Amino acid sequence: MIRFFNGRLLSMDGGLDITEDEVWTDGDKICYVGPQKDELPAFGRQIDLKGKLLMPGFKNAHTHSGMSFCRSLADDVPLQPWLFEQIFPLEAKLTPERVYAFTRLAVLEYLSGGVTAAFDMYYHRAAIAAACVDSGFRCVLCGTNGTPEAIEDEFVRFNSYDKLISLLPSIHAEYTTSLEDIKAVAELAKRHKAPFFTHNAETKKEVDECVARHGLTPTELFDSLGMFEYGGGGFHCVWFSEHDIEIFKKRGLWVISCPASNAKLASGIAPLARYQAAGLNIALGTDGPSSNNGLDMFREMYLACVLQKLQNMDAAACDAGDILLAACSGGARAIGLGDCDRVAPGKQADLIVIDLDQPNMRPIINIPKNLVYSGSRENVVLTMVAGRVLYENGEYFVGAEPGKIYEDAERELKAMLNE
Amino acid sequence: MIRFFNGRLLSMDGGLDITEDEVWTDGDKICYVGPQKDELPAFGRQIDLKGKLLMPGFKNAHTHSGMSFCRSLADDVPLQPWLFEQIFPLEAKLTPERVYAFTRLAVLEYLSGGVTAAFDMYYHRAAIAAACVDSGFRCVLCGTNGTPEAIEDEFVRFNSYDKLISLLPSIHAEYTTSLEDIKAVAELAKRHKAPFFTHNAETKKEVDECVARHGLTPTELFDSLGMFEYGGGGFHCVWFSEHDIEIFKKRGLWVISCPASNAKLASGIAPLARYQAAGLNIALGTDGPSSNNGLDMFREMYLACVLQKLQNMDAAACDAGDILLAACSGGARAIGLGDCDRVAPGKQADLIVIDLDQPNMRPIINIPKNLVYSGSRENVVLTMVAGRVLYENGEYFVGAEPGKIYEDAERELKAMLNE
Repeated sequence: MIRFFNGRLLSMDGGLDITEDEVWTDGDKICYVGPQKDELPAFGRQIDLKGKLLMPGFKNAHTHSGMSFCRSLADDVPLQPWLFEQIFPLEAKLTPERVYAFTRLAVLEYLSGGVTAAFDMYYHRAAIAAACVDSGFRCVLCGTNGTPEAIEDEFVRFNSYDKLISLLPSIHAEYTTSLEDIKAVAELAKRHKAPFFTHNAETKKEVDECVARHGLTPTELFDSLGMFEYGGGGFHCVWFSEHDIEIFKKRGLWVISCPASNAKLASGIAPLARYQAAGLNIALGTDGPSSNNGLDMFREMYLACVLQKLQNMDAAACDAGDILLAACSGGARAIGLGDCDRVAPGKQADLIVIDLDQPNMRPIINIPKNLVYSGSRENVVLTMVAGRVLYENGEYFVGAEPGKIYEDAERELKAMLNE
Repeated sequence: MIRFFNGRLLSMDGGLDITEDEVWTDGDKICYVGPQKDELPAFGRQIDLKGKLLMPGFKNAHTHSGMSFCRSLADDVPLQPWLFEQIFPLEAKLTPERVYAFTRLAVLEYLSGGVTAAFDMYYHRAAIAAACVDSGFRCVLCGTNGTPEAIEDEFVRFNSYDKLISLLPSIHAEYTTSLEDIKAVAELAKRHKAPFFTHNAETKKEVDECVARHGLTPTELFDSLGMFEYGGGGFHCVWFSEHDIEIFKKRGLWVISCPASNAKLASGIAPLARYQAAGLNIALGTDGPSSNNGLDMFREMYLACVLQKLQNMDAAACDAGDILLAACSGGARAIGLGDCDRVAPGKQADLIVIDLDQPNMRPIINIPKNLVYSGSRENVVLTMVAGRVLYENGEYFVGAEPGKIYEDAERELKAMLNE
């Protein structure tokens, strides 16, 4: 058992109230949240927070972790040559070993930035799963394509692989998937009563071409195939029609917004304030390191808010508190991790500690606003996943030395560039 | 003498090349940049960089440091009530002691974020100067208003106050200054052959009202009064006409862009790509903590680039390398700190060390892009101003304990809120 005491708690159990409650964990779960007790059980470790803030970890609800190899490889170039001349030819050289190495690197960045789970769409999913389990990191996989047998096989396999790993039905996107394959995933989602996710309306071109092909937007097409019968959502959702918004509302789907990637690739600004007004569910993701290039949920929260102010020319648009909830609780519920959405007894112990004794967090007037508008990765001093401390004060506890992980990633990238 | 060795050097002496040169400092200056020598002089300290990156510090070319008290005090509210109902009434309660305490707090944030100098416009300039000198931090003051005698007095006083302090002629803005006061500052700038700076075209309303009053944009008005005869520039520059751009080009003036503040207050996006194409000089600032809310030049660099991609719907718009130079060298030259603009013998030793052994900086393919697109405050591990190490690995060497600085700021803010 581990005891967190003498700090502040933003449990997200019912809102953004901050208390001085203690939190105890037992194994991978939270077992007590409340005031200090007179009699204490035997703890394996007692962590004196000294005024620091304990809160649920960030959930990176859309990423391609294995793309950490493309960081700073092709920036400030137009989208099409970026994708077709730089990224795709390199991705063709990926192997399970390489995806493992690059995912290991990304997990370090998640942990030191307070991210406790990722919804990861990439190739070589067995390698992703192994990299996450070896690190102690929680991962929801997606991205399965292929024959109905293959996707069924992956679904079953990764949902019984490890308590840290799960998989949700998905396709990459309408424009990269045959209608036959889309229908196969639709059947999978229905058969397992599972939510369905995909890239959706990231660019205007994508939507226009889908309408030209099918007479329907991507959202309309997926809905017409019954893919959202058990929920799900879309990555990006920048170019939604009013009807798309209605479908998302009716089905209770999740908009998973990636504002940094959408800005850097000049895809546009997802109209989150409009979605909030329509009552849509919102979560945030970083997208891959090739298009972002950081894996930094503080940056995503900041951008989510301020880009709405710009888009609406209204400094009051998009409240920071709502976005903070979206980045933690919302993300968890979006990606099937409802047991990681807040700090409450019985929930998974996916927790982070934020140091408020740093100048960017002072004065302490409104901690949620501090987190969104002046918070940064440096404020994260501890990250716990499933009850295990994986990061603390600059040190990683992930079963391998960071230096080794950097070297492996660097060596594999250089090999790919030279092949 | 201090020796930095065994690292990488981004000197900005002629571009963005990275070498393995050593750097030696002597007193407040850099005395040697070059390859390792066989015979070494006696050093007071030798810093083994172990592969880390040494580079010029960031110059925060527009800020109101003393506004650190308003952080998270009034976010997500419309601009007018924000300013008139929240900020102005509190500012009326400022005293020199309070500005000293709040500036001390801001300086900590600058140092841990790799900022080595700030161009600071705020009230109670003697208190700002004292706070910076006591911290060892470099500051260029501005914001003088009042009678010709008063502004002359401040100009002379702060330009002979301390080697870390200087002052440049300025007014707050056209819309807050009488024509008489504007003319008095114009005379000061001419008399001392000094550059002139002011808020300029931050909001569309500001420009429209100036045109209605004078038949001229702010830039045209200032130029007609001869205020830019010896250079200078504008803070924000969001809403420039083609003629404003021509004037800035002809006079060699500096656009000091504050993308985070302009976004959060819904002022707009300064068209930096257009300014770059027109050959204008560009520097970056954070603006005050009330409108940003961080004092984070990494965020400014990131936003400067990606907002241009959004504004132009072109992922190739605004190269990160140019923005990195703007944030360091450009900022120095903009604010009269030409001797702090790069790492070269005879220049001031205003240096920072960036840790590349952190996951967000890996792989090491293109360090300038890493700095802008995935870099963050956590990567700054040492900040030196005028040859003195003021920040290193989480510790501050500023003549006061951070805990005391936090307490003082917090106490003064609470007193203001209760008065």
